[in-house]
Amino acid sequence: MAGWTAELRSRREALVEILERSGCDLGLVFGTLARAEHVRYLTGFAPSMGDAWLLLRSADDVSGFLDFTWQVDDARRRSRLDDWRAEFTAGGIVADALAAEQPRRLGVAGLDRIPQSAFDAIRARLPRTEVVDVGHELALLRRRKSTLEVGLLREAARRTDRALDAARHEARPGVSEEELAARLGLELGPEWSFAPCVISGQDDPVPIREPSARRLVEGDTVMLDLGAAYQGYQADASRTLVLGEPSRLQRAVWDAVCRAYEAALAAVRPGTPCAAVQDAAARVVEEAGYRLAHRIGHGIGLTTSFEWPSLDRDREPLEPGMTICIEPAVCLDGAGVMKLEDDLLVADDGYEVLTAADSSLTTR
Amino acid sequence: MAGWTAELRSRREALVEILERSGCDLGLVFGTLARAEHVRYLTGFAPSMGDAWLLLRSADDVSGFLDFTWQVDDARRRSRLDDWRAEFTAGGIVADALAAEQPRRLGVAGLDRIPQSAFDAIRARLPRTEVVDVGHELALLRRRKSTLEVGLLREAARRTDRALDAARHEARPGVSEEELAARLGLELGPEWSFAPCVISGQDDPVPIREPSARRLVEGDTVMLDLGAAYQGYQADASRTLVLGEPSRLQRAVWDAVCRAYEAALAAVRPGTPCAAVQDAAARVVEEAGYRLAHRIGHGIGLTTSFEWPSLDRDREPLEPGMTICIEPAVCLDGAGVMKLEDDLLVADDGYEVLTAADSSLTTR
Repeated sequence: MAGWTAELRSRREALVEILERSGCDLGLVFGTLARAEHVRYLTGFAPSMGDAWLLLRSADDVSGFLDFTWQVDDARRRSRLDDWRAEFTAGGIVADALAAEQPRRLGVAGLDRIPQSAFDAIRARLPRTEVVDVGHELALLRRRKSTLEVGLLREAARRTDRALDAARHEARPGVSEEELAARLGLELGPEWSFAPCVISGQDDPVPIREPSARRLVEGDTVMLDLGAAYQGYQADASRTLVLGEPSRLQRAVWDAVCRAYEAALAAVRPGTPCAAVQDAAARVVEEAGYRLAHRIGHGIGLTTSFEWPSLDRDREPLEPGMTICIEPAVCLDGAGVMKLEDDLLVADDGYEVLTAADSSLTTR
Repeated sequence: MAGWTAELRSRREALVEILERSGCDLGLVFGTLARAEHVRYLTGFAPSMGDAWLLLRSADDVSGFLDFTWQVDDARRRSRLDDWRAEFTAGGIVADALAAEQPRRLGVAGLDRIPQSAFDAIRARLPRTEVVDVGHELALLRRRKSTLEVGLLREAARRTDRALDAARHEARPGVSEEELAARLGLELGPEWSFAPCVISGQDDPVPIREPSARRLVEGDTVMLDLGAAYQGYQADASRTLVLGEPSRLQRAVWDAVCRAYEAALAAVRPGTPCAAVQDAAARVVEEAGYRLAHRIGHGIGLTTSFEWPSLDRDREPLEPGMTICIEPAVCLDGAGVMKLEDDLLVADDGYEVLTAADSSLTTR
């Protein structure tokens, strides 16, 4: 716990350095339910409802603002910071606090989420303040994970494995997608990256959707996309099962998915441009006569789908300490959704796979 | 289903009237994960990840924009509208579409959630456009629920009752708060208003928090705050159980909570100012020597905590068709968190209670 407190403090010190480099005398950080990465990174706390705002004068002099009074105790406990206040809703007390400070130059992280009307109200109280967007620089700090962060992702991966392995006996003819998703949710434990996705059947497949009341039948392709989280760190993995004997088409598509997975993994090492991972997987799938149903993967950490990098478009090189998921998927009428997804840590000499659930296509 | 399609269309017609009254030639509506009330109200669809934007030219001429391609099919199916597009992330294609229209006056609903940077990018493409905030007027339409909406809330209430009644045998010494919350989540069905809240024990109580690994023991106060949702409509109800024989203090606090509940219900009828419900309950609790741990309640509908009215501060009168929850809670060291919460429909001659789970304090 001492290590964790020190790490949170060193993250805030890094933000203070960014603010100083940008000539800012005050920092403002915003996060909201399900998009509170910046706030969680700096304090260990994220709101389970509503918004969170931080005013940062130095690494130790931080004021937090929340929408709900009942969140204050939890915020204090997780952040080891005392000065949290709450009002429904917090925009007003944030504007008051900023007006009392009248910064010359305010560095803001979270302009991509701060609501327009709340920010207008803040600007009206700070007529002489210059605003600088420091969100991108703060996000850069989050790209390479620390040893502590990787440890939390390992635990999230372990919990995700447990649910994926449980699916091998829970996915039976007669159970509905919704029921299966609920049971797997139970296996994930109390903290999820997202609600479990279960897609069954072969016809008109879409790569991701909410579970339906459809009941599984013999011969089904059943795609499971799950993620447990642990202290905010989010795993994201997928398996595909065929109930019974796979058809020739199911086998052919699954073979292409597995080869795309291997091709993507072979590309993962420090120095590889992110998008080269996509290219490697897409080539294999297209040579087999199919196409990827969506991007080959993205970063994982305090978010999943929104975590840098997007492996289909970002060109920067992979570096040791980055964590990503690799998820080749093919959607084909007659075969259903077939996807294989694991979480990876980029290592000095390649990668380490963090998730480890059984990945065979059949359940017996 | 025909009735539902007609209702969605009539809601959009009502927004078009608001836009016309405000002299607007185009409408822009924004929603995001967990705060997509406006978008859901107008289309029946809400994103399970990312943002959703609507461009509304008339009640039938609507374009929708999403962050994820895989959501487009679901959006089309639920909205019965064809023109949905997706790009990760959607701000860019929304700005393009608006730039092509160059409205003279743009009516926007959702400025309280539209991210600052996305809106700045839109404004830069519309140098001659005047922006009008129509969010409040759109929200006014949502205050009185239609017969169809009340039907959906009834189903959400029924599912919530099922989970609360299941808690009477699931809450046993030895089970942890987290385990109990997970089992009740299963009982709620696939759609939740929020993750189940379970708070046990007597010491240092806080009125709402995430479930912990603490295991229940004989004598515990166990507070359960749950909500199932159905097609986006969200119920919200609470029960309190004592495992075994209640202490004198537990009985005294529970008695005050129940009397506050009765006092609040007695105040609910058309014409009562919202905040008078709070006053009625607070008076009873304070006469018993305690105080309310939080506001007496709030609206329910396409959200819970954020739904108008906030019964502790809004002064407007209750009207038939409004739906609210009444939730007197007392937090006392030695007694724990004790709360009783039901969902109500304001009726011509008073109210109807929508939730109906057993509310006795003991489990046998």
